[in-house]
Amino acid sequence: MNEMNENVMQNAVEESWVSPEKNLPEAEELLALIEEKRIGEFRSTVECIPAPDMGIIIEDIPKNKRLLFYRLLPKDQATDVFIEMSSEIQEELISAFSDKELSETFSELYLDDTVDIIEEMPAVVVKRILKNSSPENRSAINQLLRYPKDSAGTIMTTEYVKLSADMTVEAALAHIKAVAIDKETIYTCYVTDNKRRLIGLVTARALMLSERDTLLSDIMEESVIFAVTTEDKEEVANKFNKYGFIALPVVDNEHRLVGIVTVDDAIDVMREEAEEDFAKMAAIIPSETEYLKTPATKIFISRIPWLLLLMISATFSSAILSFFEASLIPVLVLFVPMLMDTGGNSGSQASVTAIRGLSTGEVALSDVFRILYKEIRVGVLCGAALGVVAFGKIMLVDRLIMNNPEVTLTVAFAVSIALTATIIVAKIIGSTLPLLAKRLHLDPAVMASPFITTIVDAVGLILYFLISANVFGLTV
Amino acid sequence: MNEMNENVMQNAVEESWVSPEKNLPEAEELLALIEEKRIGEFRSTVECIPAPDMGIIIEDIPKNKRLLFYRLLPKDQATDVFIEMSSEIQEELISAFSDKELSETFSELYLDDTVDIIEEMPAVVVKRILKNSSPENRSAINQLLRYPKDSAGTIMTTEYVKLSADMTVEAALAHIKAVAIDKETIYTCYVTDNKRRLIGLVTARALMLSERDTLLSDIMEESVIFAVTTEDKEEVANKFNKYGFIALPVVDNEHRLVGIVTVDDAIDVMREEAEEDFAKMAAIIPSETEYLKTPATKIFISRIPWLLLLMISATFSSAILSFFEASLIPVLVLFVPMLMDTGGNSGSQASVTAIRGLSTGEVALSDVFRILYKEIRVGVLCGAALGVVAFGKIMLVDRLIMNNPEVTLTVAFAVSIALTATIIVAKIIGSTLPLLAKRLHLDPAVMASPFITTIVDAVGLILYFLISANVFGLTV
Repeated sequence: MNEMNENVMQNAVEESWVSPEKNLPEAEELLALIEEKRIGEFRSTVECIPAPDMGIIIEDIPKNKRLLFYRLLPKDQATDVFIEMSSEIQEELISAFSDKELSETFSELYLDDTVDIIEEMPAVVVKRILKNSSPENRSAINQLLRYPKDSAGTIMTTEYVKLSADMTVEAALAHIKAVAIDKETIYTCYVTDNKRRLIGLVTARALMLSERDTLLSDIMEESVIFAVTTEDKEEVANKFNKYGFIALPVVDNEHRLVGIVTVDDAIDVMREEAEEDFAKMAAIIPSETEYLKTPATKIFISRIPWLLLLMISATFSSAILSFFEASLIPVLVLFVPMLMDTGGNSGSQASVTAIRGLSTGEVALSDVFRILYKEIRVGVLCGAALGVVAFGKIMLVDRLIMNNPEVTLTVAFAVSIALTATIIVAKIIGSTLPLLAKRLHLDPAVMASPFITTIVDAVGLILYFLISANVFGLTV
Repeated sequence: MNEMNENVMQNAVEESWVSPEKNLPEAEELLALIEEKRIGEFRSTVECIPAPDMGIIIEDIPKNKRLLFYRLLPKDQATDVFIEMSSEIQEELISAFSDKELSETFSELYLDDTVDIIEEMPAVVVKRILKNSSPENRSAINQLLRYPKDSAGTIMTTEYVKLSADMTVEAALAHIKAVAIDKETIYTCYVTDNKRRLIGLVTARALMLSERDTLLSDIMEESVIFAVTTEDKEEVANKFNKYGFIALPVVDNEHRLVGIVTVDDAIDVMREEAEEDFAKMAAIIPSETEYLKTPATKIFISRIPWLLLLMISATFSSAILSFFEASLIPVLVLFVPMLMDTGGNSGSQASVTAIRGLSTGEVALSDVFRILYKEIRVGVLCGAALGVVAFGKIMLVDRLIMNNPEVTLTVAFAVSIALTATIIVAKIIGSTLPLLAKRLHLDPAVMASPFITTIVDAVGLILYFLISANVFGLTV
């Protein structure tokens, strides 16, 4: 890409044979162009780089040259790149910006992006941004900042196209042409009545395919699916997934249209929520920074709290082991790892299923008895199957092959029955704890594998020793 | 909603105050309308129900009445609902369809939806569908069916708008108007040269905002990001996430445009891939059916294979325990559950991070040494912290409070050092096994928590007993 110059746009046909993201210039190559004062060449090169990729490149520019680099980007590209940068670099640039640059940058941004940026900034930077915004933007930003955490209001933008039902297609198209520059999408336009209440939507498709003198009231769709400002953003994302929208209107409690959510923001929510669930299921505190860019100490901090808590909880298992060790025959200890692992895995299967079902809306709190009934049956099937296999394995491997005389028929029975019981209990605990968490307005994902494993371990051990001692009398 | 009648469209303003999905009629109410021969009312009621919701309602219609029910749906809605039904019900309806109905239904569908349906059908049904398709559709379907599993080719549609660079905006709009009915999106149109090679794109936004006599060559974007037919569909979905597209062109090896992927299909891929990863991480064989609709026996079948395999692998841990039990002091066994759980949790954290990084494209195979270096540092930090806490906890709780004379200072040292070593090893195993799996073209998600736990258990036990025996001489 070093050879790129002003001709690049003419050469686009051949150049673009390789998808751009695979053939990007390095930060140093771009810096070299600047240092050699080949600014024209620099601009035509960066013009071909999509903003998300440019956001990655700019991270590799040395800190002391970043502001200069950013200032040399073509004006219309700079703001797009600004959104894509990490919030550390955004903050660094904002601090270095003149008031004029600051107000220019933020007046170019869509309001939802402004709010996303502001939410990550320290108070002093936020004040400066608001001071340099136009009065109407300032009030819109303040409004957006006031919605409850994780609500539809926080991911919506107020920049949408509003039409009225008595417009003709021609008038609507003219209106769109006049206002489009500031609107995040013009493909779905919303029709409101004189009280700003949402009464329908008109797609750009309908506008493009209709005769120019058609009234919007004749082509608008009146059954509009919408979100309410206070609705959880995960539910909003689920609507996009279910209905395949490219935008969704957001209304307040009086059904007044106050904003829209676009599909790209809905995708961000889905991604974030999935990554958060993954992190929680692995007992990690979710973070938004990329793994490879996060220092080891920060990763340590995100991982240590749960590890500590779970290690301390494992004290219960030790205590139970110690209590029973004194009274039961030693050979029983051999099967503790198998019992703990299998119980933990069985519980995890049930809990992950329940957690994901709750996240995607496939499962509701009211399904608790259907879930319980299902998991008990699955638990009985899994427990019986594994119990039989474990019995065979113990008699064959531990008794015959490894020739351990202490592994008697009674021991094999005790282990297998304890295993079956543990699996059934694990399924019940694993499927109901996430629902219980949801009911208590906690995050169900916290009730994931590591947590379930710790509980199932303790319960499994108690069952194992009770069955061995009381049913089979395997005491010393 | 029983009161709904032909006036419903006039009442849409008030009706739609409640988001439709919260206020849907039950299957029985709709059936009652049919049985009372109130067909007009039936149609006006179902017209207001979005297709994805209708797809759910139709599952609750008794099997013997489903065909009748489906035939009574308004024609333009029926096909949309057809796509949303489960493949079992689709197959049932197809078998009951006349040839004419079959060809009508499939000629209404977009080709990518047809292919999705065909992929789930038994061979005899596929033959009937192909026999009743138009020759050009049949060849397009056959072409789409031939792309490798999980490739971009399998999720694309061939129904997009193709323009040429020498058209005016006016001509382009007229062309779109003429062909729009069959096209999945008209918001991104693609410009090809006379060899069908992709040379640019024109958005509906640009068309709507430009003067009518402008040439497309003046407004088209020439740096187009695209996918290749054979590219993994997960990579395609990642591009949507990164760049915020609503459609992405797909080209063959000669850069000829052969199809497009739309954002709703990309969202489906993201969801499926995330759900698959969740399932695999919980040692469940992924399935596409909804949990609550899946019979317990099927859930059992999806869960038992990994449980069995992992239970059998736990035999190693038993064997190691049995081997050392004979030679080491009994008190050491008390700390086995804590050691196993903490090691397993530490390994899971690292493996889930690596698996998700690989899925979202944040981490590449070539990063293996950076990851290893990072995880070793994280492992040392976590290991040291937990080792110190474990030491304190053992001395305080097990020795002082529980007053166990066998828990000596040496035992506490042995356990803590074994714990630290196990955590470091768990981090290394957890982070590198998913990368190794990827290198061997296996699915990294299979190297998830349960698998890692089983390996870390065995390794942790060996470390524990080696350290206790050889370093601290805690033999009997």
